[in-house]
Amino acid sequence: MQGKLLYAQSGGVTAVINATAGAVIETARKHGVRVLAARNGIIGALREDLIDTSKESAAAIAALRHTPGGAFGSCRFKLKSIEQDRARYERLIEVFRAHDIRWFLYNGGNDSADTSLKISQVGKALGYDVTVVGVPKTVDNDLAVTDCCPGFGSVAKYTAVSVLEASLDVASMAESSTKVFVIEVMGRHAGWIAAAAGLAGKSADEAPHVILFPEIAFDEDAFLARVRATVERVGWCTVVVSEGVRDKEGRFLSEVGTRDAFGHAQLGGVAPLVAQLVKDRLGYKYHWALPDYLQRSARHIASKTDLDHACAVGKAGVELALAGRNAVMPAIIRTSDAPYRWKIEAVPLARVANHEKKLPKGFISRDGYGITAAARRYLEPLVRGEASPPYGRDGLPKYVRLKNIVVARKLPEYVIAD
Amino acid sequence: MQGKLLYAQSGGVTAVINATAGAVIETARKHGVRVLAARNGIIGALREDLIDTSKESAAAIAALRHTPGGAFGSCRFKLKSIEQDRARYERLIEVFRAHDIRWFLYNGGNDSADTSLKISQVGKALGYDVTVVGVPKTVDNDLAVTDCCPGFGSVAKYTAVSVLEASLDVASMAESSTKVFVIEVMGRHAGWIAAAAGLAGKSADEAPHVILFPEIAFDEDAFLARVRATVERVGWCTVVVSEGVRDKEGRFLSEVGTRDAFGHAQLGGVAPLVAQLVKDRLGYKYHWALPDYLQRSARHIASKTDLDHACAVGKAGVELALAGRNAVMPAIIRTSDAPYRWKIEAVPLARVANHEKKLPKGFISRDGYGITAAARRYLEPLVRGEASPPYGRDGLPKYVRLKNIVVARKLPEYVIAD
Repeated sequence: MQGKLLYAQSGGVTAVINATAGAVIETARKHGVRVLAARNGIIGALREDLIDTSKESAAAIAALRHTPGGAFGSCRFKLKSIEQDRARYERLIEVFRAHDIRWFLYNGGNDSADTSLKISQVGKALGYDVTVVGVPKTVDNDLAVTDCCPGFGSVAKYTAVSVLEASLDVASMAESSTKVFVIEVMGRHAGWIAAAAGLAGKSADEAPHVILFPEIAFDEDAFLARVRATVERVGWCTVVVSEGVRDKEGRFLSEVGTRDAFGHAQLGGVAPLVAQLVKDRLGYKYHWALPDYLQRSARHIASKTDLDHACAVGKAGVELALAGRNAVMPAIIRTSDAPYRWKIEAVPLARVANHEKKLPKGFISRDGYGITAAARRYLEPLVRGEASPPYGRDGLPKYVRLKNIVVARKLPEYVIAD
Repeated sequence: MQGKLLYAQSGGVTAVINATAGAVIETARKHGVRVLAARNGIIGALREDLIDTSKESAAAIAALRHTPGGAFGSCRFKLKSIEQDRARYERLIEVFRAHDIRWFLYNGGNDSADTSLKISQVGKALGYDVTVVGVPKTVDNDLAVTDCCPGFGSVAKYTAVSVLEASLDVASMAESSTKVFVIEVMGRHAGWIAAAAGLAGKSADEAPHVILFPEIAFDEDAFLARVRATVERVGWCTVVVSEGVRDKEGRFLSEVGTRDAFGHAQLGGVAPLVAQLVKDRLGYKYHWALPDYLQRSARHIASKTDLDHACAVGKAGVELALAGRNAVMPAIIRTSDAPYRWKIEAVPLARVANHEKKLPKGFISRDGYGITAAARRYLEPLVRGEASPPYGRDGLPKYVRLKNIVVARKLPEYVIAD
């Protein structure tokens, strides 16, 4: 086909965003369409820093399916409104025109959906015909319309497995050592990952015993009473705390706690604060963990369902683009919980951009510290299935590193001003 | 056979200590010997809190092979010298006598080897014939004589895989986000786990770029210069810091850094300190991770070599005990690096107890921030091979929970005084 397809990754990367990239490239190749990839997301598109994926072997592209991180680089860079950032939008169209880019796939979360929508509008305004498709991705699971977001299922699986394993450790040692274990999970605005931790236990006495959601204002006394009751009943207690947990005044606990009267700098992490509180007020020996990037890059324990979703949105994204469906996103539509069934449907980007999907109130148990049966029905299919990467003789997963050969520049250098 | 075998777990648990327990029980069953397990290690033996493993099905015992944590509970409890702790040693022998325990297998690290040795002597002194075998286990990998310790290979694999994965994430985002990633690993006294992190990269530009070993006094300026040079050359930098890293005066960095002039309490963790230092002095955006118990309980990413070792020492431990080999430990003897070959040999506990195996100087690169080829030759076989647990329909590993039915007490209650 005439013209090229530009693919770019945006925002925090995931264990399976490269699986989407691989599906995009493989699907485009089947249709005889060449794929360029912007290095470091939209930044590379602006700078005309474009990678020629046709230089990569079929085996290398296939290996993207099991390689975490962002193979072409991603970015944290938000374009403002067309009025405010007009020069940048014009530059993008200029780059598209120079490289005959007829289709643009932007693989990201909320901000990227918004950016995709704007680019889809600006092409027409500037008289350049480009079809823009947003492709969903975010461990935060907060995109609207789609039932879930590729990347979330794998971080959910990592988190549930880690809580299960570490809690078996704590249970073994509680008699004479650690009694309270605190693990901090991502999710600054919504408790999706915190909720997934709840999958580790099936009954009240199984870990996690306490989940601190961003949706529930932190009540110190009630929390401590719950921890104490758990230790007295079970012998130990596992606490999952979301990085986004807030106090009654709506301030992030991590910020309140780490800035003292002397203005000492924040070391980061709400887990150590919660652990210290338990020690100070209840006297229990504690340990805490903060897996940070480990949770969203853990391709070795990715969910098969999540991987399937990631591939499906990549494939559908290309098909929608080639069919000329401008300003849409392939969404994952759940048609059944048990057996779990889903399909891909194109939805208008306008329905996705600038909407945030919150954790439903019905997913948090009445006491505020656990998840409901409805949450389990939703979450369980997303962590189901294993998709182990191949391993080398060195005992490590065989993750691919692409050559990332750039195409020759056709335009003058462009500096992205602040 | 006449008499019973008592098995107990000691110290920090690992991803594969239950595999040793399973091998102990299966081997004893083959010989027609009944196995009791002390609940929470030596504490249970003192309290006469003994679990009858014959109540567990063959399937449950087989499942120990893939279940992390300590199935019978472990403890941090050190017996002093026979002179100082005579009453406790006498109590142990009393319990052994009451339950016709003829063989005692103590599965632990350095302290446990010492305790095993003492118990092996006290039986004879008190006129009770018991054969005591120490069975090695510790993620710290610091037992003497044995080439490595079951539990270490799996934490080594977890650590190398995690550093590899998180670094792919950081590399993707470095252009516009995190430039320095710091991950803290266990190892208060020796840098074995820190060294294992080095397996993640093969060349100077691959992560980890800086390893901070407990063996090398922390030099702030040299460290910062190294980080800066790495970011300028590679674009980003992964730092692995051992929890045991010390300053030039020999003080743990974690303690120096977290107690300020106002006596504020320690939140724990050297990773946030190192990250903050990078931010304050170099201005780079950072993230840090502290996997804590996750690293030593991560059965889902266990090393096959490690699992094989864990099973082999359990089987050999029983065979040595039944053959009347008192005061020995089955050690792992490496006979070849490539191909990796090993065997089990009985070594006197006296050669193991109270000796600490240090990380060889030749394993740390001359600049002090990386590992040598000799380290790779040693470490690589230990992380080789995968041993995935079975997973359920819920997407989680199928870890077994034993019934842990106790045998009837025959002695008066015993309170362990401080």
